[in-house]
Amino acid sequence: MVARVKKVQQQPARRTAEAPALKTVTLLGATGSIGSSTIDLLQREPDRYCVEAVTANRNAGALARLARELGARVAIANKECLVCAGALFMRRAGAAGATILPVDSEHNAVFQALMSGRREEVRRVILTASGGPFRTFSLDALRSVTLEQALKHPTWSMGPKITIDSATLMNKGLELIEAHHLFALAPDELDVVVHPQSVVHGLVEFRDGSVIAQLGSPDMRIPISHCLGWPTRMATPAPRLDLARVGSLTFEEPDPVRFPALALARRALAQGGAAPTVLNAANEIAVREFVGRRLGFSGIPALVEATLDAAARRGELAEPESVEEAVAVDHNARRLAANLLPEIAAMAS
Amino acid sequence: MVARVKKVQQQPARRTAEAPALKTVTLLGATGSIGSSTIDLLQREPDRYCVEAVTANRNAGALARLARELGARVAIANKECLVCAGALFMRRAGAAGATILPVDSEHNAVFQALMSGRREEVRRVILTASGGPFRTFSLDALRSVTLEQALKHPTWSMGPKITIDSATLMNKGLELIEAHHLFALAPDELDVVVHPQSVVHGLVEFRDGSVIAQLGSPDMRIPISHCLGWPTRMATPAPRLDLARVGSLTFEEPDPVRFPALALARRALAQGGAAPTVLNAANEIAVREFVGRRLGFSGIPALVEATLDAAARRGELAEPESVEEAVAVDHNARRLAANLLPEIAAMAS
Repeated sequence: MVARVKKVQQQPARRTAEAPALKTVTLLGATGSIGSSTIDLLQREPDRYCVEAVTANRNAGALARLARELGARVAIANKECLVCAGALFMRRAGAAGATILPVDSEHNAVFQALMSGRREEVRRVILTASGGPFRTFSLDALRSVTLEQALKHPTWSMGPKITIDSATLMNKGLELIEAHHLFALAPDELDVVVHPQSVVHGLVEFRDGSVIAQLGSPDMRIPISHCLGWPTRMATPAPRLDLARVGSLTFEEPDPVRFPALALARRALAQGGAAPTVLNAANEIAVREFVGRRLGFSGIPALVEATLDAAARRGELAEPESVEEAVAVDHNARRLAANLLPEIAAMAS
Repeated sequence: MVARVKKVQQQPARRTAEAPALKTVTLLGATGSIGSSTIDLLQREPDRYCVEAVTANRNAGALARLARELGARVAIANKECLVCAGALFMRRAGAAGATILPVDSEHNAVFQALMSGRREEVRRVILTASGGPFRTFSLDALRSVTLEQALKHPTWSMGPKITIDSATLMNKGLELIEAHHLFALAPDELDVVVHPQSVVHGLVEFRDGSVIAQLGSPDMRIPISHCLGWPTRMATPAPRLDLARVGSLTFEEPDPVRFPALALARRALAQGGAAPTVLNAANEIAVREFVGRRLGFSGIPALVEATLDAAARRGELAEPESVEEAVAVDHNARRLAANLLPEIAAMAS
């Protein structure tokens, strides 16, 4: 179910008069891009952080278990836990009194912006999307996009799965579902705006008309340090934002015709139940097939849509009541997507 | 000393189980642009706000007195109190336990953004400036600017004094001095960026590299409502910000050659003592003379600079220790500016 598990867990240690509090950090997924940035930060403050355990694996269960067992702070950089079993995850974290800190630059930005008001004063949360490498491509041009083109993200350097998700905008769709769970927001309280410069990472609109935004250079050490240091802010060596040098920040509506993945994620979010789990599973199969050059770029959302439709027809969209049920939904959806693949690949080629 | 006093003062009333807390509002300066917007908001919630007194006058002392007497919240939309006697004002407000809430859109934005972190985590506060109607004018073109041109502000509709201060950028210089007092910031922790769309009103850069900004439609009801409702946010009828419709937000460094007023204010801020009081007094005389068509547009900063130089030579820049001393400095500086006027007017014409 989970391709990448990248997570930092902290626990405040006994504070003495002589030394600042030592935080014990367990780093699951130390080899990925988030893990490397985290290690860079930890090494700069050896007196404040003690790395207890470092792993690189595919086990999502450990995350929920840690939250349950420790009543601690859990910094989450992993989308799939929340997308596939968000209600379960947040319920268990809540029961354990764990604070979930999002490492993702967009959700971390929203977390920071939310500090300027109260939950009931929030009118809307807006995630920014770079728009990916094909932002300006025509519908025709999108059909003949190559794997090499899709692997070049304009702003962030990341693994192939998330880079392709950024190109289809499915990444932003998954982030909407994440935000729904992390911040307890209704689908109509969530929005996306395309912002190619990736300087504004997220915004919160309050009911007075104030919009609070978090901006910064595209450097993951900023959101990671926010999770490590929270509720205080650490100094980081991230490049300082110079708005006059950036010159211009642009914003546009995402185009639902050229990028249907975002609308599919919105549909799954509105449907609720297991729909987001099915969406995610089908997308993982679709991206794997695209990377294997067995499915065209526009086949990715087509396969996701066909899988969602088929799962709905089969009555397989009930809310998973346990992690085991979520895993079963995931497996069934993958099989469904694999079965639908030949037809979709032929249609989209 | 003070040309406009526009202020809202609130005091929490006894809260009963049946009704929400009634706030008593004293509105000094109800006829100006800020006063009108405030009344618009108060009329929408007659059950929450009780207007105790409404005045329109030129008496700045009342403001400090109210803060002193009530230990209450004071919403301040008046620059001159802070520019001319900022240290005194903040000291008295502090002693009285009064919370100073800034109504100015820029300072209110900073106040909101500061809620995302702690004072010691702030690296820099950045005020935005529209750049005024002459942002793109050459140095030559600036010399022949007319009064009518200077009275047209690109974004806000305000009185003539502040509109002309916006055109010279002196307004932003005075706001830097205000921010220095309001937020206890050193001169090198304060910056200005020109942002013609006036959508981002202020930004706070924290030591982790995060920049928190407040954005909104240019509608004074947003910052006013923030002061009225604080620490909660009221719903307002202000137009919602639609970033995709705005399309582009641009930023540039202010040009110190074409707009020397900002550098003069920075110099006065760095000098401290009575220098900001002298700067403000000389600027008031200069703007009055420009409005009277007796001084050219580029004569405004020239007169301010000459007055600052003369006051420094005469040893008249010691920190005022009382409101009376600040008033005396102000009077002397006005006389000095009036004496220097013929020479500067001749040079700048």
